[in-house]
Amino acid sequence: MRLLAIGGSDAGISAALLARELDPGADVAVIVSDEFPNFSICGIPYYVSGEVPDWRNLAHRTATDLEATGMRLHLGTTAERIDADAHEVAVRDAHGTMTAMPYDALVVGTGARPVRPPIRGLDFLGPRDGVHVVHSMGDTFEVMSSLTAHDARRAVIIGAGYLGIEMAEALVLRGLEVTQVEQLAEVLPTVDPELGRQVAAELRERGVDVVTRTAVQLITRTDAAETARLRVEGASSDGTPFQRDADIVLVFAGVKPDVALAEAAGAKLGVRGAIDVDRTMRTNLSDVFAAGDCVVTHHRLLGTTYVPLGTTAHKQGRIAGENALGGTREFAGSLGTQVVKVFDMAAARTGLRDHEAVSAGFEPVTIGAEADDHKAYYPGAHRIAMRWTGDRRTGRLLGLQLFGHRHAEVAKRVDIAATAIFNEMTVDAISELDLSYTPPLGSPWDALQIGAQAWVKAVAGTAKR
Amino acid sequence: MRLLAIGGSDAGISAALLARELDPGADVAVIVSDEFPNFSICGIPYYVSGEVPDWRNLAHRTATDLEATGMRLHLGTTAERIDADAHEVAVRDAHGTMTAMPYDALVVGTGARPVRPPIRGLDFLGPRDGVHVVHSMGDTFEVMSSLTAHDARRAVIIGAGYLGIEMAEALVLRGLEVTQVEQLAEVLPTVDPELGRQVAAELRERGVDVVTRTAVQLITRTDAAETARLRVEGASSDGTPFQRDADIVLVFAGVKPDVALAEAAGAKLGVRGAIDVDRTMRTNLSDVFAAGDCVVTHHRLLGTTYVPLGTTAHKQGRIAGENALGGTREFAGSLGTQVVKVFDMAAARTGLRDHEAVSAGFEPVTIGAEADDHKAYYPGAHRIAMRWTGDRRTGRLLGLQLFGHRHAEVAKRVDIAATAIFNEMTVDAISELDLSYTPPLGSPWDALQIGAQAWVKAVAGTAKR
Repeated sequence: MRLLAIGGSDAGISAALLARELDPGADVAVIVSDEFPNFSICGIPYYVSGEVPDWRNLAHRTATDLEATGMRLHLGTTAERIDADAHEVAVRDAHGTMTAMPYDALVVGTGARPVRPPIRGLDFLGPRDGVHVVHSMGDTFEVMSSLTAHDARRAVIIGAGYLGIEMAEALVLRGLEVTQVEQLAEVLPTVDPELGRQVAAELRERGVDVVTRTAVQLITRTDAAETARLRVEGASSDGTPFQRDADIVLVFAGVKPDVALAEAAGAKLGVRGAIDVDRTMRTNLSDVFAAGDCVVTHHRLLGTTYVPLGTTAHKQGRIAGENALGGTREFAGSLGTQVVKVFDMAAARTGLRDHEAVSAGFEPVTIGAEADDHKAYYPGAHRIAMRWTGDRRTGRLLGLQLFGHRHAEVAKRVDIAATAIFNEMTVDAISELDLSYTPPLGSPWDALQIGAQAWVKAVAGTAKR
Repeated sequence: MRLLAIGGSDAGISAALLARELDPGADVAVIVSDEFPNFSICGIPYYVSGEVPDWRNLAHRTATDLEATGMRLHLGTTAERIDADAHEVAVRDAHGTMTAMPYDALVVGTGARPVRPPIRGLDFLGPRDGVHVVHSMGDTFEVMSSLTAHDARRAVIIGAGYLGIEMAEALVLRGLEVTQVEQLAEVLPTVDPELGRQVAAELRERGVDVVTRTAVQLITRTDAAETARLRVEGASSDGTPFQRDADIVLVFAGVKPDVALAEAAGAKLGVRGAIDVDRTMRTNLSDVFAAGDCVVTHHRLLGTTYVPLGTTAHKQGRIAGENALGGTREFAGSLGTQVVKVFDMAAARTGLRDHEAVSAGFEPVTIGAEADDHKAYYPGAHRIAMRWTGDRRTGRLLGLQLFGHRHAEVAKRVDIAATAIFNEMTVDAISELDLSYTPPLGSPWDALQIGAQAWVKAVAGTAKR
């Protein structure tokens, strides 16, 4: 049994690890285009901030650890072509030598590529100019080089999603003046604006110059003496001009699935151009599995969609690895659960927001609520802001969004809701859960139960209970 | 509709609050034997420690708040007799005046009484001697009086359950030298000894003199000049004598249901002598409900048992309140979920331990596992020690115990498991949960999923997967 994985990130490595675990006789190899297999890409902001002093620590496992499991790693090697009929992948190694690698089962984990928004200047300015579209470890080293070589003092970050916000924090921690520009009405547009506003307030509190409803249109080099070498220009939705000088510009405009290799081999594409896979992670090509940011996502509430997340890539990779060896496991589906730390605060979500629930055919009711993370009489209690979305017809919990202190157990509280949604619980039943309580760490009714009760009361007030 | 509740703690007040919420026309009254309705008894150690400077803050709601909902409170009033046929309760007020209070529905929330272990001296020594069996706000004031009036420097705490441990911490924070004596092999006997040992280590690290396998047999007054006024004597299980001098002795030996009133009225008793109720919280007496520490507990895995917990009392009280008004709600059942903070650490459990699972007819496999609360490369990662119990036959998750740093989201992680057990998930399915991840607050596979995978692997190693 020869299992070949293309891609050294979460999906490919997870598949290879599980295959080695289940069948110590399996011949498992992973093609890795760079020198950084199994790196925690989500950790990049913490290397940039200086909180993780050595980038090597960002590896989930070292190459040595990986090879100790019995898998082979082909670093600096690019998969050029998949011949699905011949069950072969043509690869080019670091020296340019082409080889054909045969497989019995193939796992495509080519991931995603960053979107390059249509900003004039972005097409020809690059890392050497201090303009960075950040996605990989390689990109990160170039950012570090820009920061240090040019003694950057002023940064503009384009985009205020998870990574953009984390990078704003990282650069503030490095002592830079940071402007964060978001085209939409509020930062962190993956949560409701009511929470996004609180995220923006935390960013501003920490010195980030947050500019929303503003599109960047132009980046130019100025190279004037005694000033920054870049100028970023644009306009807000009401036409107000936007302009900042900067030593470094970072762009975070989302990702799109990297499917060129699979597509050329005949793989069927689906939502958002991602590789179409079933819940066993099989593509339409015989013995070719795919997993991670390059494939469509089976969502437990939305059906087939595209939600690229590292957690999902790990799960899908493991399933691809098991099924490549003859298993029959199915991916249970995503709920789009996410959390981001914003300085001392954290924002998290799981399931659907109101408008997403509408488009999925539900009749959602969304309410805001607040509760303390633990009994207020015990020192250090923090308020948690909540957004509860449930279905009016069935009472089913559809989604939860939280914003609170990083020590308010916001991440694991959203996970309680994720577990409840996974099991199709009603909002009302959240109050039936036997959750832990001690005054320094909770309340007799957990914050979640207080929120759930507020939802039930609100719905009872507008219809029958 | 006249709803009468006996007991001003969690169950009685919860019943009264929900009744007022559901039916603003309901005549709701609560008989409270002391002056402290709706107090957070779990907060007592934090008042004793000084972390909560004003005992009044321990009230979940003030009497004024409660009365603002439209309920009437009869403070300092004792229910002397329930006449179930006449639907009347004979009460004695603070002046000794007897009155008959009629009801349409009655909720008995008489709670529990502390067990007084068979220690010689405990029968005639009391608060004035510095010997305290602590359960109520009244007891707490007496403890505070002993601590301050006698300038106590040395304390012996008998019992190392939740409250005993919390009180040890409280007295250490007050600067006392504390000896904690536990009859069983390890402290916190509600978790496995593997975790109990770690709890004991944390207590010792903070200066608590932890003495296990040791029964206290005698407490005497010494009243010698320049020394403590009490002597505590006993022996370990191997016969080694135990002796400590102390200025104050606190006894925490568990509780038993306070059922005298209901029993005298003809209420049927059940497990551990608690009032027998069905899942609607009805007793065998017409229109008499009971809830909280005085009733048997419906446990989702064990059936009918007795697990007195504040969280359960709140839930049961709410159900009694709804059903007293004609509702049909059933208590969904307890999982015995608990958490205790021990200085900077926290220990939590939900569901069954191995021996409990055996007696409930399961075929349990219990394993230990460890994982970080978040990616180790991000500063401040903490190890979480886990004990996973699942059923070998069905793969079902039966119980989880955790011990880790108080900022390692141990409480809410055990609640994720409680939610999973509530929904009868398998251990294997824990890996399917879409849990949140960001390096400062988690891992792509949450600590729980790493533990669940270790359990699955261990069981696969001993049987078919």
